[in-house]
Amino acid sequence: MKEEMRYLLIANALEQQIRNDVLKIGDKLPSIRTVKREYGVSMNTVTRAFFELERKGFIASRPQSGFYVAGHAKSRLAVPRISNPTSPSHPEQAENLISKVYQSLNDTTITRFSIGVPANELLPIAKLNKSLMQATRTLDGSGTAYEEIQGNFKLRRHIARWSFTWGGMLTAEDLVTTAGAMNALSYCMMALTQRGDTIAVESPVYFGILQLAKSLGLEVLEIPTHPITGIELDALRKALPRIKLCLVVSNFNNPLGSCMPEANKQELVNMLAEYEIPLIEDDLYGDVYFGDNRPKPCKAFDKRGLVLWCGSVSKTLAPGYRVGWVAPGKYKEQIVRLKLLHAVSSTTLTQEVIGDFLENGRYETHLRKMRRTLHANSLHFTRAIHDYFPEDTRVSRPQGGFVLWVELNPSIDTALLYDQAMHRRISIAPGRMFTLQNQFNNCMRLSYGLLWSDELDKKLKMLGSIVQKMIS
Amino acid sequence: MKEEMRYLLIANALEQQIRNDVLKIGDKLPSIRTVKREYGVSMNTVTRAFFELERKGFIASRPQSGFYVAGHAKSRLAVPRISNPTSPSHPEQAENLISKVYQSLNDTTITRFSIGVPANELLPIAKLNKSLMQATRTLDGSGTAYEEIQGNFKLRRHIARWSFTWGGMLTAEDLVTTAGAMNALSYCMMALTQRGDTIAVESPVYFGILQLAKSLGLEVLEIPTHPITGIELDALRKALPRIKLCLVVSNFNNPLGSCMPEANKQELVNMLAEYEIPLIEDDLYGDVYFGDNRPKPCKAFDKRGLVLWCGSVSKTLAPGYRVGWVAPGKYKEQIVRLKLLHAVSSTTLTQEVIGDFLENGRYETHLRKMRRTLHANSLHFTRAIHDYFPEDTRVSRPQGGFVLWVELNPSIDTALLYDQAMHRRISIAPGRMFTLQNQFNNCMRLSYGLLWSDELDKKLKMLGSIVQKMIS
Repeated sequence: MKEEMRYLLIANALEQQIRNDVLKIGDKLPSIRTVKREYGVSMNTVTRAFFELERKGFIASRPQSGFYVAGHAKSRLAVPRISNPTSPSHPEQAENLISKVYQSLNDTTITRFSIGVPANELLPIAKLNKSLMQATRTLDGSGTAYEEIQGNFKLRRHIARWSFTWGGMLTAEDLVTTAGAMNALSYCMMALTQRGDTIAVESPVYFGILQLAKSLGLEVLEIPTHPITGIELDALRKALPRIKLCLVVSNFNNPLGSCMPEANKQELVNMLAEYEIPLIEDDLYGDVYFGDNRPKPCKAFDKRGLVLWCGSVSKTLAPGYRVGWVAPGKYKEQIVRLKLLHAVSSTTLTQEVIGDFLENGRYETHLRKMRRTLHANSLHFTRAIHDYFPEDTRVSRPQGGFVLWVELNPSIDTALLYDQAMHRRISIAPGRMFTLQNQFNNCMRLSYGLLWSDELDKKLKMLGSIVQKMIS
Repeated sequence: MKEEMRYLLIANALEQQIRNDVLKIGDKLPSIRTVKREYGVSMNTVTRAFFELERKGFIASRPQSGFYVAGHAKSRLAVPRISNPTSPSHPEQAENLISKVYQSLNDTTITRFSIGVPANELLPIAKLNKSLMQATRTLDGSGTAYEEIQGNFKLRRHIARWSFTWGGMLTAEDLVTTAGAMNALSYCMMALTQRGDTIAVESPVYFGILQLAKSLGLEVLEIPTHPITGIELDALRKALPRIKLCLVVSNFNNPLGSCMPEANKQELVNMLAEYEIPLIEDDLYGDVYFGDNRPKPCKAFDKRGLVLWCGSVSKTLAPGYRVGWVAPGKYKEQIVRLKLLHAVSSTTLTQEVIGDFLENGRYETHLRKMRRTLHANSLHFTRAIHDYFPEDTRVSRPQGGFVLWVELNPSIDTALLYDQAMHRRISIAPGRMFTLQNQFNNCMRLSYGLLWSDELDKKLKMLGSIVQKMIS
């Protein structure tokens, strides 16, 4: 048999196993070595077979961990539709939903698919506590004192150093620390807009961004967004003459999970530069990628200092530390000034701890583990949705981050689903939270940033059956 | 000799010793018991003599520490004049000064009379570090997680409990924690004003308040302020129809040191209530009193929920912890919302540590010590200014806090004095920093929140001689 044929034979055999649930989504594939022995072929042939399956979306590689079954659902469940924001309506409906969902967030007896941070079980709490002890000793008296206005130097230096991995070439001088990424976004918006200005955002978009913009008196233009490639550039282009700034979560957007291809990022940056429009880039999920490399942020293509690149460790290490940052490009002075006026300085100790974590490579060690866990979780969740939800369910394919966007039958109102699920002590984030307009009523965000277990599988099954009943 | 005569005899003798510098300002008086023995009189007679001297301002009692020489300077150096804000002019001059002074704040080789926080030597760093270790253990995983939006419950409960000492009768529910008092002020201003609104403040006033108001697009009306009794109510009354809110540092105002009498506070609250105007009360120095009791804040007289009472531990415990709070009265929902939008939550750990400090009475223990130290410092500084500065120097008489307001000969420009003093590695805070108008050019703020030493005495002497030279 020709080598050409052999690799396809193997690929087909594995594909059948996946289609017949012999290999289930989330399962680890046998190693290349094992398959080589089983089929009596060369390593090369197996590798080629695996690449073929990966290309077709049936399997996915995870760095240092091998291949996993990924794509079965892909063959059946479609991705959600591109958003098509219409006219504004009832923003207060979204607000009421948000308050309601927030109230359930601190109740640990509820299975919180609604949660916006990874569960504590996925975080290196003990190591952080150890670093804190160390930082307290190192800093001694200066740990309780004000730190310099731009923020902890060690932390800024290591964020800068790290930026070289995606071509950022930042220096400590380019960075300003903040009390988390939302705090960075808030300074950016305050620095760049005035009441009445219009800003462009993705749709759906994290509700905190919408609420913040509204509270600053801004008009929000929700731009259609593709669940895989992110903000639709043609739609954005038409809006450029009207907008004061653009804000995107470029990598593993919350809630959609989209990640803009590099070409799109470059085009976005150039397009905005033509109009001298600043771009606030919320890149707080960029380090939680499932592929081989961290996706570049738009900042990597910024030649004019128009991109304000924001990040934090709230989604990866310690939400309660309130450690975030922004590289504000040419707007640095304004951001430093706003930080000084509104908060005087950052919390000294927690920044030092994160600085240490970066310095000693502990952050990267933790991230490697977290990425594997979250990738496996995303596959578990997708498999469960495929198994337990109606066939017309659409689900996103995030290649990073920790949320899934699920589009249900149009007859289903996820605000009602929320209430029904809460009777079973399950909480979800209804789609209407992520827009100021009348859309996403049949969508929801599910967080897979939880410790996977049979219990969780049961809860997803329960949720699926509630959905099934709501249709019939 | 009649008892009447005896006590006056003793009082006169001591007065002479003070006038002749046998007893210098800042010196501790011999104990009542010692004087009793020396003069062969009853305890009662000595006590009466001391009261007489206290009434005349020559001595001051300090709780649990006895009597100190206080009033010699009072007999010679006048208090600064009541401000008389004129027309706005060159606010950028103030800004440049502020930047300049800020640059010198982190250089520990400079004697920083300009500093806005107490020196580390006055703070219980070791005890805070110990509490931090404990909090880390207690909280375990929840120390790195988001805390509830309103802030750490323990902290709020103990601030509430403490408020009963001044008749506050707050509950934990009434309080919202913030990243320091300025952060609280910023939420209050954002909640209550829109660009173009006018607000009333004291004059002089902490420059951060002026800069924040300006950055929010507010018009600032600087109201004449008495160096002892605070904001001039008649002047404020005239402005009421024009203003959207009033902001005062009611107790030991920075930079003036004024403390509003209770009657003034009550009148202020009632006056504003008539017009339904909210009052932001920055009470971050209220606990650093030199008398027997904490002065009540305006909040104690607030029946309508119009007073937003703000505080922090930045001036008394740990500036770098970023722990502050506000009891926003009827504006609570707005403040919680702004906190959520701009910062998501507070730093979990540092709030827990301060909660512990309050719970275990460690804060009060520390404050008792700090008050004694700062009171002695204020007397040392006043004595040094009396000894080394020209006779026409005017100096404030703060009964709390840690700053002195010094008014020099009208020919002296303290912006120039700043430059000259910096050549000798001494920094001051020029008066023009504390206004947006053309005033206080011959004034400066000196912080006595430093560890007193002969070195410090020498530096004040040096500063005095620079002033002397600038006049001649």
